[in-house]
Amino acid sequence: MASRPSRRPSLHLVVMAGGSGTRFWPRSTSRRPKQLLTFGKSRLSLLGQTLARFDGLVRSDRRLVVTTEALRPAIESEARGVRVLGEPEGRNTAPCIYWAARSVAAQDPEAVMLVMSADHHVGDPESFRRTVAAAAAWAASHDDLITLGVTPTRPETGYGYLRLGEPLGGGCVRVAAFVEKPDRERAAEFVRSGGYLWNSGTFVWRAAAILSAFDRLAPEMREAWEAAGGDVARAYPRMPRISIDYAVMEKADNVVAFPLDCGWEDVGSWGSLEALAGTLGARRPGGTLLGGELLAVQAEGNIVDTPGKLVALLGVNDLIVVEQDGALLIARKDMAQEVRQVVEQVKRLRPDLA
Amino acid sequence: MASRPSRRPSLHLVVMAGGSGTRFWPRSTSRRPKQLLTFGKSRLSLLGQTLARFDGLVRSDRRLVVTTEALRPAIESEARGVRVLGEPEGRNTAPCIYWAARSVAAQDPEAVMLVMSADHHVGDPESFRRTVAAAAAWAASHDDLITLGVTPTRPETGYGYLRLGEPLGGGCVRVAAFVEKPDRERAAEFVRSGGYLWNSGTFVWRAAAILSAFDRLAPEMREAWEAAGGDVARAYPRMPRISIDYAVMEKADNVVAFPLDCGWEDVGSWGSLEALAGTLGARRPGGTLLGGELLAVQAEGNIVDTPGKLVALLGVNDLIVVEQDGALLIARKDMAQEVRQVVEQVKRLRPDLA
Repeated sequence: MASRPSRRPSLHLVVMAGGSGTRFWPRSTSRRPKQLLTFGKSRLSLLGQTLARFDGLVRSDRRLVVTTEALRPAIESEARGVRVLGEPEGRNTAPCIYWAARSVAAQDPEAVMLVMSADHHVGDPESFRRTVAAAAAWAASHDDLITLGVTPTRPETGYGYLRLGEPLGGGCVRVAAFVEKPDRERAAEFVRSGGYLWNSGTFVWRAAAILSAFDRLAPEMREAWEAAGGDVARAYPRMPRISIDYAVMEKADNVVAFPLDCGWEDVGSWGSLEALAGTLGARRPGGTLLGGELLAVQAEGNIVDTPGKLVALLGVNDLIVVEQDGALLIARKDMAQEVRQVVEQVKRLRPDLA
Repeated sequence: MASRPSRRPSLHLVVMAGGSGTRFWPRSTSRRPKQLLTFGKSRLSLLGQTLARFDGLVRSDRRLVVTTEALRPAIESEARGVRVLGEPEGRNTAPCIYWAARSVAAQDPEAVMLVMSADHHVGDPESFRRTVAAAAAWAASHDDLITLGVTPTRPETGYGYLRLGEPLGGGCVRVAAFVEKPDRERAAEFVRSGGYLWNSGTFVWRAAAILSAFDRLAPEMREAWEAAGGDVARAYPRMPRISIDYAVMEKADNVVAFPLDCGWEDVGSWGSLEALAGTLGARRPGGTLLGGELLAVQAEGNIVDTPGKLVALLGVNDLIVVEQDGALLIARKDMAQEVRQVVEQVKRLRPDLA
């Protein structure tokens, strides 16, 4: 952890907005990806909320959204005035972050960049911004790779965890290890111990620091880039499909964390919206209501999103019920991850609805 | 059982079409009662199918539909050219049949009348008509009260049964007793024994014979009628709310049955349509599909009626899924009878959808 002279950070924002979010079908489709959806009473899409979170913190000419070339027109019309990079294809987060870091560094060699996904919910933006400011100040004066870890509020088995090491002062803590998604028992132990954070996949670092880490730990990225003469369309196919965690973070010895305590949630599947029911004002007898009206008779724990429709549930528990256009999904809540299987079939049967 | 000289019967049809069919909500509503619905691939409503069943057997000037005054306009536009009686209120089947019998007898003192409900399915109309013709011939020459009992095809616990007595020739059998809906075990015994029929509530008798039975066994009907000077609006409130089975059939000693073997089903709730899935061409992987498209992943035994919509079921079994206009019902199949509870709540919450 080399220390650098303290200075006011020049903060740049990189939003990763490439996924198609098939797990939110039928609300999300190939033409209407998850990051462009609104949920509950919000008037902003997930991407719109992500950008708005940085108002007053990051100037619009220092904002960058990375998506796929196919989604670029839709993303550009949602993120007006922001530079949008279109990847030739999604190849996980490492190539995306490598390209973004090179773009930011070219614009501003001293840039501190914050990287986050377009589909994360933040319940308390003020608290989030305070943590970001502290992390950015640290990044400006250290070569560390900072991950914003979330103080866990429940024994979640759907997230990876960060095991914390020594405190470094100013809220910063060394990360001792990355821990894969645990089972229920270990997750409960992690929460009890107080020594773990959820791995949110939100990072703060100087662009130069992450590029240097790539060169040390994943030199194949620079090799692909230079072999293609910096042409993205030619460089991408040569880059490995790999996450930033596997490519860099888990190998690096200069990873530190700032704990986030801001009502954070990865909006990854219908189930994650249940955890946000309170924030979204969506708690009802019968379950979580994200759109439409709900009438429940002997029904509990359901997740309903049917704008403009009255849904009557009789004797059914733990279902996901979602309607959009000509499609209705009824799924067992504990099979939310398998919605992908449904989408594969819809693509064959009714491509217009996929 | 008095015998009368044999003659060609003058057959009249009385269709009871008064119910609102709340158990089919949201397909049925107070303005769109069950008997006006179409199911599966049929182009005719249940009432339309019931009338068509008698084409070539009963002339249109000998057809009578009894409904409530409130439903009369809707019923009249469905049953064009047929006389429609509007009851001041539904008071179960005995008052309805008493009024119909007086109307038919006034038109034709020698009339044989067939009484049936508008919401019964008949899979084999030709077989049905042969049985009706045989029963009508018997009625023309006997004072018996004939009930058309259905040869049971499964140990159904949702129907009452007729215990059969001595055979009287020509397919006619004396009815020894009416048996209330049995439990599963007794129902199975009834089916095995061969000595029982389902009580279909379809009757054939001379109008004069049923009126004479009313006078003997339920004299309060004639008393109410005459006290009101034959004015239906004044007579109805004086009549008991009672079924024809309780008022007459279970007490009479001249009840006989003709067995029906014609794919009969009482279309009483969503569950009954499952028994008709084969007939309606509605069997699919995942369950019974009455309208719309169905995509099932690890899903079985569901009943789906969602015209114009693709329904994807993931990991769910034995559900009823019905959409109509702005309302969607998702119910456990074994709670089909409780849809009424839902409708009570919809009446309060969204009367426009009830």
